[in-house]
Formats: sequence, C-alpha cells, structure tokens
Amino acid sequence: MAAFESYKDAYSNARMTRSDSGVLEIALHTSGGKLIFNGHTHEQFTDLFHQVGEDRDNRVVILTGTGDAFMDTIEPDGFDFFTPNGYDKIFREGRKILMNILDVDVPMIAALNGPVLLHSEYVLLCDVVLATPDTVFQDMPHAAFGIAPNDGIHLLWPEVIGSLRGRYFILTQQKLSAQEAKDLGVVNEIVPRPQLLARARALAAHIVQLPPLTSKYTRIGFTQRLRRVIDEGIGYGLALEGITAADVARQSSK
Amino acid sequence: MAAFESYKDAYSNARMTRSDSGVLEIALHTSGGKLIFNGHTHEQFTDLFHQVGEDRDNRVVILTGTGDAFMDTIEPDGFDFFTPNGYDKIFREGRKILMNILDVDVPMIAALNGPVLLHSEYVLLCDVVLATPDTVFQDMPHAAFGIAPNDGIHLLWPEVIGSLRGRYFILTQQKLSAQEAKDLGVVNEIVPRPQLLARARALAAHIVQLPPLTSKYTRIGFTQRLRRVIDEGIGYGLALEGITAADVARQSSK
Amino acid sequence: MAAFESYKDAYSNARMTRSDSGVLEIALHTSGGKLIFNGHTHEQFTDLFHQVGEDRDNRVVILTGTGDAFMDTIEPDGFDFFTPNGYDKIFREGRKILMNILDVDVPMIAALNGPVLLHSEYVLLCDVVLATPDTVFQDMPHAAFGIAPNDGIHLLWPEVIGSLRGRYFILTQQKLSAQEAKDLGVVNEIVPRPQLLARARALAAHIVQLPPLTSKYTRIGFTQRLRRVIDEGIGYGLALEGITAADVARQSSK
Amino acid sequence: MAAFESYKDAYSNARMTRSDSGVLEIALHTSGGKLIFNGHTHEQFTDLFHQVGEDRDNRVVILTGTGDAFMDTIEPDGFDFFTPNGYDKIFREGRKILMNILDVDVPMIAALNGPVLLHSEYVLLCDVVLATPDTVFQDMPHAAFGIAPNDGIHLLWPEVIGSLRGRYFILTQQKLSAQEAKDLGVVNEIVPRPQLLARARALAAHIVQLPPLTSKYTRIGFTQRLRRVIDEGIGYGLALEGITAADVARQSSK
Amino acid sequence: MAAFESYKDAYSNARMTRSDSGVLEIALHTSGGKLIFNGHTHEQFTDLFHQVGEDRDNRVVILTGTGDAFMDTIEPDGFDFFTPNGYDKIFREGRKILMNILDVDVPMIAALNGPVLLHSEYVLLCDVVLATPDTVFQDMPHAAFGIAPNDGIHLLWPEVIGSLRGRYFILTQQKLSAQEAKDLGVVNEIVPRPQLLARARALAAHIVQLPPLTSKYTRIGFTQRLRRVIDEGIGYGLALEGITAADVARQSSK
Amino acid sequence: MAAFESYKDAYSNARMTRSDSGVLEIALHTSGGKLIFNGHTHEQFTDLFHQVGEDRDNRVVILTGTGDAFMDTIEPDGFDFFTPNGYDKIFREGRKILMNILDVDVPMIAALNGPVLLHSEYVLLCDVVLATPDTVFQDMPHAAFGIAPNDGIHLLWPEVIGSLRGRYFILTQQKLSAQEAKDLGVVNEIVPRPQLLARARALAAHIVQLPPLTSKYTRIGFTQRLRRVIDEGIGYGLALEGITAADVARQSSK
Repeated sequence: MAAFESYKDAYSNARMTRSDSGVLEIALHTSGGKLIFNGHTHEQFTDLFHQVGEDRDNRVVILTGTGDAFMDTIEPDGFDFFTPNGYDKIFREGRKILMNILDVDVPMIAALNGPVLLHSEYVLLCDVVLATPDTVFQDMPHAAFGIAPNDGIHLLWPEVIGSLRGRYFILTQQKLSAQEAKDLGVVNEIVPRPQLLARARALAAHIVQLPPLTSKYTRIGFTQRLRRVIDEGIGYGLALEGITAADVARQSSK
Repeated sequence: MAAFESYKDAYSNARMTRSDSGVLEIALHTSGGKLIFNGHTHEQFTDLFHQVGEDRDNRVVILTGTGDAFMDTIEPDGFDFFTPNGYDKIFREGRKILMNILDVDVPMIAALNGPVLLHSEYVLLCDVVLATPDTVFQDMPHAAFGIAPNDGIHLLWPEVIGSLRGRYFILTQQKLSAQEAKDLGVVNEIVPRPQLLARARALAAHIVQLPPLTSKYTRIGFTQRLRRVIDEGIGYGLALEGITAADVARQSSK
Repeated sequence: MAAFESYKDAYSNARMTRSDSGVLEIALHTSGGKLIFNGHTHEQFTDLFHQVGEDRDNRVVILTGTGDAFMDTIEPDGFDFFTPNGYDKIFREGRKILMNILDVDVPMIAALNGPVLLHSEYVLLCDVVLATPDTVFQDMPHAAFGIAPNDGIHLLWPEVIGSLRGRYFILTQQKLSAQEAKDLGVVNEIVPRPQLLARARALAAHIVQLPPLTSKYTRIGFTQRLRRVIDEGIGYGLALEGITAADVARQSSK
Repeated sequence: MAAFESYKDAYSNARMTRSDSGVLEIALHTSGGKLIFNGHTHEQFTDLFHQVGEDRDNRVVILTGTGDAFMDTIEPDGFDFFTPNGYDKIFREGRKILMNILDVDVPMIAALNGPVLLHSEYVLLCDVVLATPDTVFQDMPHAAFGIAPNDGIHLLWPEVIGSLRGRYFILTQQKLSAQEAKDLGVVNEIVPRPQLLARARALAAHIVQLPPLTSKYTRIGFTQRLRRVIDEGIGYGLALEGITAADVARQSSK
Repeated sequence: MAAFESYKDAYSNARMTRSDSGVLEIALHTSGGKLIFNGHTHEQFTDLFHQVGEDRDNRVVILTGTGDAFMDTIEPDGFDFFTPNGYDKIFREGRKILMNILDVDVPMIAALNGPVLLHSEYVLLCDVVLATPDTVFQDMPHAAFGIAPNDGIHLLWPEVIGSLRGRYFILTQQKLSAQEAKDLGVVNEIVPRPQLLARARALAAHIVQLPPLTSKYTRIGFTQRLRRVIDEGIGYGLALEGITAADVARQSSK
Repeated sequence: MAAFESYKDAYSNARMTRSDSGVLEIALHTSGGKLIFNGHTHEQFTDLFHQVGEDRDNRVVILTGTGDAFMDTIEPDGFDFFTPNGYDKIFREGRKILMNILDVDVPMIAALNGPVLLHSEYVLLCDVVLATPDTVFQDMPHAAFGIAPNDGIHLLWPEVIGSLRGRYFILTQQKLSAQEAKDLGVVNEIVPRPQLLARARALAAHIVQLPPLTSKYTRIGFTQRLRRVIDEGIGYGLALEGITAADVARQSSK
C-alpha cells in the first residue's frame, strides 16, 4: 500500500500536498508553470492516478492546474502516434488512465484554473467541478491533428451534457464559456480565481467530515455506471483513433 | 389478482381512493398528517407498491403526500441499520421497493405537495412530476447519519439531471427549489398547492382515455431502461450503504 | 458497394444530390412538396438508409424536408397495423430503419425545415440538428391512433433530453418550440429558413476537411452507445406497439 | 413479512411443508396427483413464489412434483392466449413468475420426480437439480400449439447447456434423458425415485448449516447474472409469443 | 422487399434454390467446386445475407458448401489488409456480415460438407449444425497470417463451447473432429455425406410446418443475445485485428 | 513503464524468471515451498499482477505453484475480515486483483502443479490451463469459514462450466478431479508433473512466435467479455461476502 512520502515527489509534472485530514491536492504543471501536455505526461499521469488510488490515506482529491490554464497546450514530444507499436503505448495508457481515475475510491474535486482544451474527460470523471470565470472548454487537438476524438471525450461529453449537445460540441470544436458549461451541467460552481482553491478546500473539508468508508463508498456508488461507460467504449474508441493516426501519417508521407 | 377492496385499507400510512375510471390516488401520511418515514413505512410501502402493481384495474397512479411536505422527516423507529441481520431486512426491502414501483405497469404521476428531503428516488421513477412552488429537493438523511447515499438516489439523480449535476447534488446536500428542479428536468410543471391534485387528475384523465393496453405498454416502454439501471446498481449500492452503517455503529460504540 | 448513380433516383420520396466533396443531401418529399408519410415511405426509407450507408463515397449526410414541414402528416396508405402478418412488415422495417441510420458511418446533419410531428427519432440519430424558428416537435400520431409510442421515440427522447422530460414530452403530447428544443439540447442551432441549407452545407464542408477515416470513425465512436440503446429496446417496443394496434383494431371492430 | 401459516394452505396446487430448520418443500400437484398445468396454476404459482420469497424464515427451498411426472400436461383452462387483453394477463404473469423465483433469496433445489415437458425454465432457475432416472426434458407445448417458445425457455436453455445445443433442443423438440441432461449440465445428480427427497433434504441440511446470511447472499451472488438474462429478454420474448398466438387464433378462425 | 428472382443469380459464389415451401438452400462455391474464400467473396456474402434477410418469402435457410470442404482455403485476391483505407472496407464488411446473418429472421441450418478452417463464426450463428464425419474445425488463417483472430471467432467460440475451451481452441489452432465438436456442442448431428442435405431438408420441413411468424419469432428470440455479443465486440475486435495487419505489413516491408 | 529488474525480486511469495523471448514464469510459493495463502499474499499478488501488466516486455505469462499443490492452504495472518475497515482492504484488493489479471494484456497459461482449493478464479482468467493428474478443484475456504463465496468464484465457475454445474460445484463444495475438470472445460490438457513446465513453455514458445501486437490483441479480444463479467459483479459480490463475515464475527463473539 502506497505511503504518501514514497510518491509525492515522484512526478515531475504534478505538485502534491496533503493536509492532515487527508485532502490531497494535485497541481499539474510544467517546470512550475502552466502544464505542457506531451507523451511523457501521458505516461506519468497514468501511473500517478494509480498511486493516488492505492494510497488509503487519501480522503479527498483536489485536481487543479497551474498558471492561466488547466490544460491548453499539447506537444508531440514523447508521443509516437504513427506506428502500430508506438501507438500501442498510447493505447495502453489511454485505457488505463481513465480506469485509474475511476479506481480512485474517494471523492474528486476539479478546480479549473482556466481553459480546458484537451483531456477534458479527466475533469468529467471528477465528482465536483469548480471553474474560474475565464475557463473555457473545447476539444481542440483531435481536429487539429485530423484524428478521431475517441479517447473518452466521445463517451463522456454526451454522457454529461446530453447526446446531441455532446456530439455537436466535439464535431464543431465548439467553445463553451464557464457560464455555458454551468448551464449545461459540466461546471457546478463558477468561482473567482483568488477563491478557487479555498472553495475547493471548503468542499473537501465538508466531505472529509464523513466517516472514511462513507465518502469512499459514495464515490464507488457514483462510479459504477461510469466504469461501465469507459470500460465498454474506451478500447474500441482508441483503436479507431489509432487507425486514423496511422492514416494521417501515411497520407502525409506520400 | 388483487381487488382494490382487499388492500385499500391495509396500509396505515397510505390513504387510497380510486375513481371509476381507474385513477388510483395514494396519499402518504402519518395519522392523517404529514408522513413520518420510519422502518415500518419502509416495509409497508414495499408491499403497497407490489399490491398496486398486481391490481389490473388500476389505470393510472397519482402519488402524493399529506400536509406541508411530501417527505421530510425520518425517525429510527422500526429500523435496525446496525447489525447484519437487521440491515438484511432493509437490504431486501430497499431492493424490492424500487422494482415494485417499476412493476407498476401503468403511468405514474407524482404530485408533490412540498419538500422532498428523502427517498426522492420514488419520485424519479414516476413518469410525470408536478410540484408546488414551495417544493424543495435535497438528500438529507444519509449525510445526517453519516452513511452512504446508495439506496437508488445515487443511480437516479445522475440519470435524470446529468452525471455531474447529480453527483454534486448528493455530495453537497444541495437544496433545489421547485424552479431549479424544473430547470434541471426533475419537475415537469409547477402548480400552486390548491390546484395540485386537480392538475394531476386532469393529466390522469387524459391518459385514461387511451386504451388500457396502450397506456400500460407505454409505461413498460419507459421503464425498460430504468429497470436496468436499478437492477444493476441497487443491490451493490445498498450493500455498501449497510457496511457504512455498521461502521458508524461500531465507531459510536467505542 | 453501391455507386451513387445506381440509387440516386430510386426513391420516389427522396431527392438526392451529392457534391464533389461527397456531401449527400437527402430531401424527403411527396411529389416535390411536403412529405406525406405512409407505409410506402416507411418501406422506402428503410432501404434508402441502407443504400446510403453502403456507399463509401458519401462523406457527410444532410437530411432535410421539403415545403413547410419536415414531417407532420401521416396517412394509412400502405400500412397494415392490425393483423399479425401486416404488422410483421412494420416490425421488420421499424427495427431495420433505425439500425440502418446508425449504420451510416459518416456524420449526419439534420436540417429541419419546419415541424417534426412524427418519427422525430430519425432526427435524434443525426449528430447535428439545425432547425428553423418555426420548427416544433411533438409526438402526434401514436396518441391519435391510440397505440403505444414505442418505435424508438420512447428510447431516444429520454436519452437526449433526460428521463423525466422525455417521458412527459411523450405522455402529454407536449409541443416544443424550436427555442425550447434548443434549451433542452435537441436542437443545436436555430437558423432562418433561407439560410438553413447554407448553414448545413457550411458545417458539412468543415467536417469534410477531416480525413475520410477520421470523420467516419468519429461517427462510429458516437453511435456505439446509440446502437446499444436501439438494439436493446426497439424490438420489444415495436412488439408491444403492435399488440396495442391489434387491440385497437379489435375494439373498433366490435 | 409473510408468516408461513398465512400462506401454507393458500395454493390449491402446491403442498407445502417446512422443517424446523427452515427447509421449505413445495410439491406441485393437482388434487393430490400429478400436476395439470393450466391458466389457474400459472396465476397461482406467480403469487406462490412471491410469498415464498417474502418469508424470511425460509432457509432453503425444495421444489418437486407429485406422481410420475414433474410437469408433462397442460390444459387450456384459465388461459386466454388469443386476445390482446387475455394475453396481457399471461404476459404479466410470465414476466413476474421468473423474477419472483429469482427473488427467492435462498438456495433452491429442484427434485424432479419425472418428465419435465413444459416450463423447464423454472427448474433452470434453481441452484441444484436432482432427477430420477426416468426424468426426460423436452419443450413440448409451444410447437404443439404452434406458438413461439419465448417464455424463458429460449433464454435459459442456451444459457445452461450452450448456445447451439439450446437452440437445437428447442427447435427440434429434442427429448433429453436424465443421463443426457446430466452430461449437458442440466442435472447435477441422478437419484432413484425412492431416495429423491431424502437426497434433496440431505443437501438442504448441508446448506442450512451455513449462517442464514451466508446461504442467502450466496444465492444472490448466483442470481445476479440470471436476473439480467431474464429481465432483458423475457418481456420481448413473451410479447412476440403473444403475437404468434394471436396469429394462430386468426388463422384458425378463418 | 426483395423477390427471389431478383437476387438468386446475383452472387457468383453462391448457388441458390428455394422450395415451394420457402426453404432456401445456399451452396457456397467457386466455379461450381469448393469455395475459395477471398476479398470478393467477403464483399459478396455481406450483401447476400442482407438480401436473404430482406426477402420475406424465405422461411428457413440451409447453408452448405460444395465439394469436399465447407471452407478451407483463403486467397489474398481482393483483400487489402495492410493500409488503413483498404482495411476500412474489410472492417465495414466484417461488422455487417455478422449482423446481416443475425438479421435473417428465420431459422438457419448449417449443413457442413467438410472442413471449416475459416469463418466458422458464420456457422455458429446458425441455429442447427449438421456435419459430415470428416468435418473438422480449426481457426487457421489468423495465425498463418500472424494477425489477431478478432473477426467474431473470438466472441463466438467461447460463447458456444465455454470460455476456456474457446480460448484454447483459438490460441493453439486446435483441430476438432466432427465427434469432438459434437461433444463440445458445436455440432448437433453427424450425418454421412450422402444423407447430409436430405437430413437438413427434413429438419427444414419440420420447421416450415410451424406458422411463419412462429418460426420467425423463434429465431428472433434466439438471436437477441447473440446480437448483443456481436454488436458489443465485433467492431473493437476488427479494429485491433486491423492494427495487427498494419504491423505485419510494416515489419515485412522493413 | 516497469522494467523486469525493478520488480522481479520484489515479491517474497512469487519467484519470477523471464526467458529472452519474453516468457515470464511466476511460481507462487512460501519460503520456497508450497504457497500458504494469507492476507499478505493477497496484498502482494494484487500489486504483482499490476506490475506484470505494466511491463511491455512480457510476452506470455506462465503461472504455476510450488511443491505439491497450486493453492490449498489459507491462514488468517494479515486478514481482518471482521471489521468494516479491515474488510475494506480486502474489498479493494479483491476487486483490483481480478482486474489487474485482466489488465495483463498478453496470453496467460496456468500450469497447475496440484490441488486448487482456493482462488481458482485466478486460474479461470488465464487463457490456457494445464494440470497434473493429481490436480483437484474445490472451493474450500468459504464454506469452512461460513462466508459467502462471492470473490469471483461465483462469477467465473458458472461462466466457464455452465450455470447449473457452476452453482452446484460451489454450493456443495464439490471436488473435481483433473479428468472431470477437463471434461467440463476447465482444464485444457492433463500433463504429468515432470512434463508440466516443459509443456507450458512449448505452448508459450508457440505463442511467442506471433508478432507482439498480435498475441497481445488476441488476449484483449478474449478478455473483453470477462472484464464485463468481473467489473459488473465483483464489487457487489465482495460487499455481500464482507457482510457475511461481519455476521460470523458477531455470532461468534456472543
């Protein structure tokens, strides 16, 4: 069973602190500033959520970003989307990361400090979503790269905001403001940036007052359906996405 | 097959009348006033919905309360949450009551006469929900007792209002006004208290004009998915809730 | 594999054109004017969507109507709802048509030119829905004929707008204006009639810029869940609807 | 909660005794001899299994027959297969009886005293099956009446003996001897008639030694999957069977 | 609705005859002799089963081969397994062919005239399987080509013969004799070659005596579960198989 | 991504070696002799299978035991079955270990060196099962402790050998010899003890000749259904088992 000290400094793109009451804060970052997502963070975060889930001393998780965006930049470093073997690593991690988040058996609070232009599916697997007024949501990279958006985005957006709204959001690369996202049920509360973490901590403090098994089994109750959605759809989705990436590579190499 | 006379007076906490056209009204109450929910009503209502479902002369069901709340008070009388054998009775009834409601093969109209602070899942299994302006929704007792809210609340709120909204509602004991609930799709119409039952009866009268098999098979069409949601999740949810209750008992007895 | 020329003129109630980039427009009509839905169009459209799905040269599909309604009139010609053998044909086509729409492996855009009072389930299986300001939605014919609305309506409306909203919409024959439908997530954009097709084409042009496999596998990702919903529920629903039709026939022949 | 005395003599076609340890024996019969299955027993047994499931003092159930067959004769008395309303009663009971058997939350032992030519699906929902050497299995009545065998037979035989074996068994009205049935996994033990009940009681006595919750939750563990199989398929199956019955009636009345 | 004359001669690798009673015999062949499976037959059979399913005059289908094997030879002609676009055609057809077989709403009898070394999944979707004494089963081509056996083989063999037996059969390219296959429940009857078709016709004649809706709705009852198995697994399986094919191509081109 | 050196010596009850071709052999043991299963091994093996799954250099896994049994002894050391918090650890590990085995994305071969009296569900998740002639299968500990056998046993035995056979096996603590287990499809080959590992290695060598992605995606194809079975049933099963354990503790402390 993981002990916090053994992993708290193990992830170069995640700054972690934990309160005495067991509230774990994870701030994603790159060199202390805004996170630059790449193939290395994909691998790292897959393991990170596994470790967080294994540590029974975590009571609530707050997931936030650093700087002026939660996640808005992706770079190709560390990714090989374009060969079967290269993609196989992404395929494995892509399936595992969502299940690892769902295997975190304690309530999770997303505290969005700004735009979420990629991997918003991580957010949708949290149980409470707070966002600053300047937060916007979009699925940016798939259309930019010309590949299918089948890494969980396609499963969770229709699940959370409704089937037709979700499909339109993805297909048109719609931008949703914080207020629009709140109207559609993706954001629970809009909180000014200076109060964001304080509000997240207040909610966490409320939850932490429950007996440990109670908050844990509440999360398990919540995730039963989401596990099904992910487990039934994520492998197929990623396999198809991989084929589109191979096709992009092939067309561009002609 | 049940005949109305045989069960209409059998339930001390449910006043039942039926029109010539087959519209059954069930008004939950305690001694003629507002319902006090306890272990005895839990057992009683489980059997009540079974009987209602077995009676082929029921054509539409209107479910309402008495006094100034639909359901806002719970008392421990008749419940043993804290021993395995005691909880087993709750476990059986808790699984059965939701399936028994779903086994009512005719359209159901909830006419909410005020706050619904517990067992709102019964309401969500109805097909039409009318509410007075002062109706509020909250999941109050689970957090109050420190136990997991896994008696169907956790399955049906995310199903009806969306995944993130539903999880937030439960985890923060959010209070939703009638208008908020209407905006989120839990309430179909807000009706002033004096007109509440008249409006429910008007809708019932509309439905009752359909041929009996038609209204019945419409309900069956509606409940197919809900049966799945309940049957797949309710046993697991209640088993976990029971363990949290045992833990609460154990901690408090130290 | 179908070639466009072989089927483009094969359907007397569907006018089809295809752009060089592969955007297929299907305009439903009767004699060049507003579509009159009947048993012959039911059979015809079942085959139509099969052919459209088989033709790999289709890249995006725009589905629209003709005149001042998308679909608001149904006539009994060509339907035999009232004998087991007659209904069996409807039962077969009713199951197939929805799966055939889902087997169209490219994004589909509904461009609603006016009221949709029947078979709105075809629209809900599209990925983007545009509607003119005068578009209204209602499930009209089932209640009019006194039969159960179990041809997919009962599955898809609760799926798209929420469980209680969907059941109320069907049970009360609620009329939803374009704006209400947009608020509930059925319509993505309201577009004045003169700009309707231009807007649909602009969205199609945006999608067509994606590599062919990418747009196709995006659609497959979207439809995985909808296939489940339809395949699990449509046969049962239609069988029950058929029994209600037989009952109506029997009662009226007494 | 039911008390044994209140229902033990309530069913004219089921003789019930219960040991001090809670082993309930149900012997199906007609006037003390071999059961003649008809519409009245269909209704009666639906309620019987409900009552048995509600009585928490039952610890194990032994289900057996009387005379030289478990069930080999069906008579039309009390059935109306041929009108929508008449069939609706069968439809309701047919769905409920299988779920009511599955709602018996204690281990069930079938002690087959001879041929099972109809409703063998009741047997397959038991957890242990003992059979005399002269027991044979067949699905006789559906083909005899010319109607579809979709009352659960079609779900459970493929589930228990394999997909192709199950379909062949039903489609060809195959007769399986006790030994063949044992080889295929339908019968667990072949026991001479004089020892049949003694062996069933010995197994029940073994099970009854487990703590009550343990044997109960073992049964619940076993039935989780079977509930899914039945709940997903039985309504659709019976609706189709009803349509075939209506068709038979129509053809024969020409 | 298809009329037999319109398609009976449309498939160069399928010889079709139909009796007056509606028993359709399909004999797969190449130039009148043993079938050579290739990319063209894959496309052709996909459409063939669609047409057969659309023709309501078919009452029972007998599927057989020609010469001394049912299917034991595969040639690369007409297949492009190795580019994303080429594979996309196989992916589409591979998903459709199994659903098209399941959309044949009448009982299907496989009359196996010899070895089945490829596409045995077509056989497992039939309801009755007859085989000559020299019939053997094996999954040969996937291992031969070094690609994953995920075209339905991987779903249906574990479904029909048991999970561990099915996985071993595929992973070790086990050869099962007709007798072994009968012992495992894949073959229902072993019939000498000269009597093979006569026996299939006798069974078909037995089934054809049932009212048409009855035999049809029996098949629909049987296929409900198989549709689920296929629809949930076939797309994912084929996508993965396609990636392994791309990888094989890549390795061999190095 | 794990490297073999980093974990090969990390588990005191698992001796691991890996061939140059990537065949990983895991021999479970206690102090070099027959494994004594206890709470520490439960925790250890949960992590072990996670690590094995994460290491992409593993190509095939052989799972075997040491001494004269695969697993026949369980000791209470390290288990706390009897308090909610103690059981919560077992509950977490029990859910994770089966999913971790299923997350091993390469073919797994069980080489059973003798009796399997507990945790036979680990074996059933392997793809090939070899057993020595003296191997027997039984579910021993649950009945011995008086608790429900709901740790996966109850899901996988009915899945692998058939519903009624599986329930009888568990309910009666049936002992199956190697030959009986082979007849029922649990064992694929019976191999004398001296040849056991050689045969496992030969099969592994055969599989390892496939391209790495091919053998991997074959395993993924196989496990899709098993993941569903486990994920849907294991949490509920274990929660109920925990309640029975609490009840046993309570009764014995009276």
